[in-house]
Amino acid sequence: MEKINISNKLALISDYWNPRIVGELNNQHVKLVKFKGEFVWHKHDNEDELFYVIEGCFKMEFRDKTIELNPNEFLIVPKGVEHRPVAENEVSIMLFEPIETLNTGNTRNEFTKENLKNI
Amino acid sequence: MEKINISNKLALISDYWNPRIVGELNNQHVKLVKFKGEFVWHKHDNEDELFYVIEGCFKMEFRDKTIELNPNEFLIVPKGVEHRPVAENEVSIMLFEPIETLNTGNTRNEFTKENLKNI
Repeated sequence: MEKINISNKLALISDYWNPRIVGELNNQHVKLVKFKGEFVWHKHDNEDELFYVIEGCFKMEFRDKTIELNPNEFLIVPKGVEHRPVAENEVSIMLFEPIETLNTGNTRNEFTKENLKNI
Repeated sequence: MEKINISNKLALISDYWNPRIVGELNNQHVKLVKFKGEFVWHKHDNEDELFYVIEGCFKMEFRDKTIELNPNEFLIVPKGVEHRPVAENEVSIMLFEPIETLNTGNTRNEFTKENLKNI
């Protein structure tokens, strides 16, 4: 059992849209990821997803609205809701979601990451 | 669906050891709580618990060691492990844990809080 320092872990990440696992509890993963640019539209049929902004800001696009998130703000995207993260500049995010969550949800494409690594 | 601003929610909390619910996903709660002083020794038989420090610092005491946590650090306390949070000064914490988690775990005493409020 060891504490996790978010800044130290983020320093190990230099690529975008590639979540790393930094914790596991109650069949959920805590992940860190850096975003820049536009992701793909997708939804998760069975998992709610929490996005917590550590550094930077980004916009979560939905089909009917957009929500802008800044540091120390979080958003829970309910299962079944289509969404697309867009970040004009680099943003660092903490994710909290079930361990079976695939980053691109119901789609598979060049952004899909499987067998995520622990850091 | 609305974003949650942690600072705005913390401004609504003026007491200690009284967690408030600020989010729910996948049968887990996101809670905010302020600590000051010494809590009671307890464990959770069925729930892992995540403590994420927003502001301030505190020590998590275990029977065999103590871990000090500072802002932007988190600790996952596995189910079954006795622990006691101690904060010399006020600290603001975000918790992730299953919705059935009782703050004092396997004990009931003057610190026990049931029917937590959403803020």
